[in-house]
Amino acid sequence: MINVGIIGGSGYTGGELMRLLLKHPQVNIEAATSRRLAGKDVCDTHKHLRGFLDLKFEDLQTKEIKKRCDVIFVAVPHGTSMDIVPKLLGEDTKVIDLSADYRLEKSVFEEVYGIKHKSPLDAAFGLVELHPEVAGGSFVANPGCYPTGAILSAAPLAAAGLIDYVIFDSKSGISGAGAKATETSHYPNMAENIQAYKLTTHRHRAEIFQELNRLDRTLLNISFTPHVIPSVRGILTTAHIFTKDVMSIDDIMPLYLDFYKEKQFIRLIEGIPSLSAVRGSNFCDIGFEVDANNNRIVVVSAIDNLVKGASGQAIQNMNLMCGFDEKEGLWTPATAP
Amino acid sequence: MINVGIIGGSGYTGGELMRLLLKHPQVNIEAATSRRLAGKDVCDTHKHLRGFLDLKFEDLQTKEIKKRCDVIFVAVPHGTSMDIVPKLLGEDTKVIDLSADYRLEKSVFEEVYGIKHKSPLDAAFGLVELHPEVAGGSFVANPGCYPTGAILSAAPLAAAGLIDYVIFDSKSGISGAGAKATETSHYPNMAENIQAYKLTTHRHRAEIFQELNRLDRTLLNISFTPHVIPSVRGILTTAHIFTKDVMSIDDIMPLYLDFYKEKQFIRLIEGIPSLSAVRGSNFCDIGFEVDANNNRIVVVSAIDNLVKGASGQAIQNMNLMCGFDEKEGLWTPATAP
Amino acid sequence: MINVGIIGGSGYTGGELMRLLLKHPQVNIEAATSRRLAGKDVCDTHKHLRGFLDLKFEDLQTKEIKKRCDVIFVAVPHGTSMDIVPKLLGEDTKVIDLSADYRLEKSVFEEVYGIKHKSPLDAAFGLVELHPEVAGGSFVANPGCYPTGAILSAAPLAAAGLIDYVIFDSKSGISGAGAKATETSHYPNMAENIQAYKLTTHRHRAEIFQELNRLDRTLLNISFTPHVIPSVRGILTTAHIFTKDVMSIDDIMPLYLDFYKEKQFIRLIEGIPSLSAVRGSNFCDIGFEVDANNNRIVVVSAIDNLVKGASGQAIQNMNLMCGFDEKEGLWTPATAP
Amino acid sequence: MINVGIIGGSGYTGGELMRLLLKHPQVNIEAATSRRLAGKDVCDTHKHLRGFLDLKFEDLQTKEIKKRCDVIFVAVPHGTSMDIVPKLLGEDTKVIDLSADYRLEKSVFEEVYGIKHKSPLDAAFGLVELHPEVAGGSFVANPGCYPTGAILSAAPLAAAGLIDYVIFDSKSGISGAGAKATETSHYPNMAENIQAYKLTTHRHRAEIFQELNRLDRTLLNISFTPHVIPSVRGILTTAHIFTKDVMSIDDIMPLYLDFYKEKQFIRLIEGIPSLSAVRGSNFCDIGFEVDANNNRIVVVSAIDNLVKGASGQAIQNMNLMCGFDEKEGLWTPATAP
Repeated sequence: MINVGIIGGSGYTGGELMRLLLKHPQVNIEAATSRRLAGKDVCDTHKHLRGFLDLKFEDLQTKEIKKRCDVIFVAVPHGTSMDIVPKLLGEDTKVIDLSADYRLEKSVFEEVYGIKHKSPLDAAFGLVELHPEVAGGSFVANPGCYPTGAILSAAPLAAAGLIDYVIFDSKSGISGAGAKATETSHYPNMAENIQAYKLTTHRHRAEIFQELNRLDRTLLNISFTPHVIPSVRGILTTAHIFTKDVMSIDDIMPLYLDFYKEKQFIRLIEGIPSLSAVRGSNFCDIGFEVDANNNRIVVVSAIDNLVKGASGQAIQNMNLMCGFDEKEGLWTPATAP
Repeated sequence: MINVGIIGGSGYTGGELMRLLLKHPQVNIEAATSRRLAGKDVCDTHKHLRGFLDLKFEDLQTKEIKKRCDVIFVAVPHGTSMDIVPKLLGEDTKVIDLSADYRLEKSVFEEVYGIKHKSPLDAAFGLVELHPEVAGGSFVANPGCYPTGAILSAAPLAAAGLIDYVIFDSKSGISGAGAKATETSHYPNMAENIQAYKLTTHRHRAEIFQELNRLDRTLLNISFTPHVIPSVRGILTTAHIFTKDVMSIDDIMPLYLDFYKEKQFIRLIEGIPSLSAVRGSNFCDIGFEVDANNNRIVVVSAIDNLVKGASGQAIQNMNLMCGFDEKEGLWTPATAP
Repeated sequence: MINVGIIGGSGYTGGELMRLLLKHPQVNIEAATSRRLAGKDVCDTHKHLRGFLDLKFEDLQTKEIKKRCDVIFVAVPHGTSMDIVPKLLGEDTKVIDLSADYRLEKSVFEEVYGIKHKSPLDAAFGLVELHPEVAGGSFVANPGCYPTGAILSAAPLAAAGLIDYVIFDSKSGISGAGAKATETSHYPNMAENIQAYKLTTHRHRAEIFQELNRLDRTLLNISFTPHVIPSVRGILTTAHIFTKDVMSIDDIMPLYLDFYKEKQFIRLIEGIPSLSAVRGSNFCDIGFEVDANNNRIVVVSAIDNLVKGASGQAIQNMNLMCGFDEKEGLWTPATAP
Repeated sequence: MINVGIIGGSGYTGGELMRLLLKHPQVNIEAATSRRLAGKDVCDTHKHLRGFLDLKFEDLQTKEIKKRCDVIFVAVPHGTSMDIVPKLLGEDTKVIDLSADYRLEKSVFEEVYGIKHKSPLDAAFGLVELHPEVAGGSFVANPGCYPTGAILSAAPLAAAGLIDYVIFDSKSGISGAGAKATETSHYPNMAENIQAYKLTTHRHRAEIFQELNRLDRTLLNISFTPHVIPSVRGILTTAHIFTKDVMSIDDIMPLYLDFYKEKQFIRLIEGIPSLSAVRGSNFCDIGFEVDANNNRIVVVSAIDNLVKGASGQAIQNMNLMCGFDEKEGLWTPATAP
């Protein structure tokens, strides 16, 4: 049994961490912090957890949460995490940072996020299907939601050195934008609509590129265009992949099967994935179709942005860092319809 | 051709007034005010009007707007309107106030809204199906959205002195809460949900009661419970009406037919109304079912809250005040599906 | 460990039974029948269960399923169940019928459903909060979805003999209408809409009345009006309750607290329940407001129609029939947002 | 005043034709056919038109409808139109076919649709922004919904010979699939979901390619991947365009401005289009962003699939064929929110 703390527990990823950790047999949720809500019941904010959690938000010093917790999830905005993480590391504390602060190489981070990095550190990139070094480590940068779905859709082809170019056209549920009401998330603006944004400049492009380029150093560029759709949860990524040669499904299927062999949370499916089969679960469903007349493959991946795209993946990382079964606390089917 | 001004043009009712007035053959939209957006193009806010309207928001004194406009719609929050309206009246200016400030008798207003009325005035209650005195007048208090659907559903029975008691259980689209993003209107909170609120204390109860009581002075009370549903537009009102005697459909249908004879925007329908048949239009669809074993009738009415429940009704009032055909600018079917 | 069978496994209640039973530590899902889909993988239909269930639909004789299973859930249409259930009972087999065939007294059933009952039998009414006799029994009629939310909202007041009259105005997600595409469930008809139906004649009225009347024999009638809303899951019931005397919240709260003492799946909440806090879970959230000027109380209850309103409640019944902890397999929070 | 007939009036495009033609000052809706619904009121099917249209569906011979009507819209399924259209043409009758039967060159049609064309004829391709020859003609093939949005997004660049390759990633509201309930359109399947389909093989690819290739004969291929989203109306097309050279916004903007000069229904906008600004209207909004590091431009177009993507465009064609103002009956802003 380990004690777990969540720094920044009032948002959607904080709530989702608690929803999932509650069912984890080796975890005690020891603390959740929120400066704004300190002293308030966690379940006043996360009403769906009523009856499961007798916990108040606290406004804790890093020193104190480090003392009380074996594993700490940091769920604070980008740029804030770098002030907190260095104080948490050391003395066996395991840290999983859900912000972007430690996902990218320092120079790339500074360019993409437009801020100077105060305290660069090496972190494992917590996409465990590609990064076995997560196991046993003490510090993980949990991937972004879009990158998770995008990278997983294309990684087997990248690893085989077959990709000429990729365009990721992603469609996300609006919960990815957070628990705070904004003009974009205003129901009359989002319902019956779809909003493309940052058509060529979204920050997650760098993260996707970094990981695919690690698999294939000859890959020089990728494109990424995100959209929000009238859905609370989920990211569907349509990866338009141009390969170096014309390929058939018989060339490609074995690559995917082999690359994801024994990866428990990747489901290769016949047909085309959709959000409804992964909602609430940690799965990434992947399907594809080969364009017979072109050297193009269209791969579609579906994840729940709050689970495999954030909190579930963070727990998957925790499981490997702590030596638990990778599936512990996460082996639950989606809720459908 | 008349010149029309809108005080408070940046919200949903302001935008809807302009959408409808643009098609009105006798109207020129002369001015729309917004303190916050003064100098900005109206179409930057109301993007759907691009190409139709070459107008900037202005920050106008009442004196100036009065000089430039024949008819002025006041679309400002409750409690603000009473500061503006008295300065607009007189010298042939016609004023239609969309706030609650002049809908209720002064004492009732003060009790229900908890504020002192600074400048009480007599206004016609702008539900033209019940208030023919609107025609030719110069000052109208435009009804609330819930009251419009609720009063119209029960008025024929009230006028006949047949109602023992009514419970109005109403379900509204979220646009009724306005253009500003709030926790309630946050897509993840509203989608796939329904939220009951102010179960027994909503302010519109007083307005519904006032009007039904005007039709039947022996009616002493009514109940009203509102809900918001995952829909942008529309109010469906389920009126659970207990009558003094057991009645049949053959007793009731003639009452409705007679009461709404020649009322162009009331459609009595066989079957049960739904929002999709009125969306974007000024109609109020009404249908009902008699409980054979009880002295109960369930009447259902459907309106578009932004049209018949606000801006469309305001224009209907304008038409009668100005001697235009009641249907002018409003005789457009709903958009469905 | 018990073997469980599901007769009629291809619909939403069948899928939901499997989703929940998969996590039940004392259950093996032995068989799921479907005449139409016999031989096909269960997960081709219930795609969200891929990776969890290696099972094919079978077309089984009752004799055979009885031989292989300790507990059998019958999830077939009304009128079909009565042909199956009698053949399953006996020799320690436990049967939970999710249809309406055994919920009502025979004469009431025949009147309300308009068909002759071929094989009347006594069943416990499986609303365990009111029917402790479920425990240890072998045959349970699982309640309807609307009745579950409606009865639970009013039961404490009925048991105290305080109700003069009740109108239940219920709003359901469309999954209650089943997995088959219909005109009502067609997305363009349901989205941004709300549909009232069977305003005074829905069959569930009889079931609600039967149970409240069992608690208070002086209660002579109730009204029930259902609606479908643009939501997949959930039923919100607004119970407009007239009490014999004017009551305060201090009179009422203790009644509810006492009546639901130690009922694990009832959560009395301050404020007003909403669907988002119960989605995917077996909880019934209840909140209320007292109309200070009237002898009226408005009680709101929220359930997930597929869980507490169907499959979750069926498993809750199974737990008590088999002597398991009532919470086994069901003690999971809702998924939100 | 002309008499207009609609063959196949019971579907969404038929309903939308009537909604729009009702407001057209030079049109009388003379007949709407439906074999299945012959003799029934049109408004029983299209409930939103109640009060506007006193018309019954008829089961008419082509000879008879030709006699009674000056302009005939054919809104029947692909493959059926070719049996009807040839009998309608001649003697001044003007025909607008909304099916795919006459959009493509015969050989391409036969390959893509897998059926032999029984009666090939030359038709003008009714995208009037590209095909001025529509004016004064007597036979038009109205474009498909996806092609309309896709072609308009890329045409200026194609006409300038600048396109190296394009991927169209389109997202459509579900009304495009028609009025008949299907598994895909079942609310629980569509809500909170997004469904990619025919990733590389959708038939509209041929139509998009034909038109862009007409503008640039050196363009050899394009890709098209469609999705349905939880929205009733609208198509957002994200066109990922690779240009032959790196280009700046200053290179591109003038091309679009010039190409669409005096095209009344094309709105070039700053920022990114969204469905809410075109819903219910005949506009195509276009915006774009240049990828500074690539020879890539991302163009986004938004249309209402039932208006500019079908019935509105058909009326726009009719206007030009009959010598009316192009805007007649169509010059109405979108309904928002």
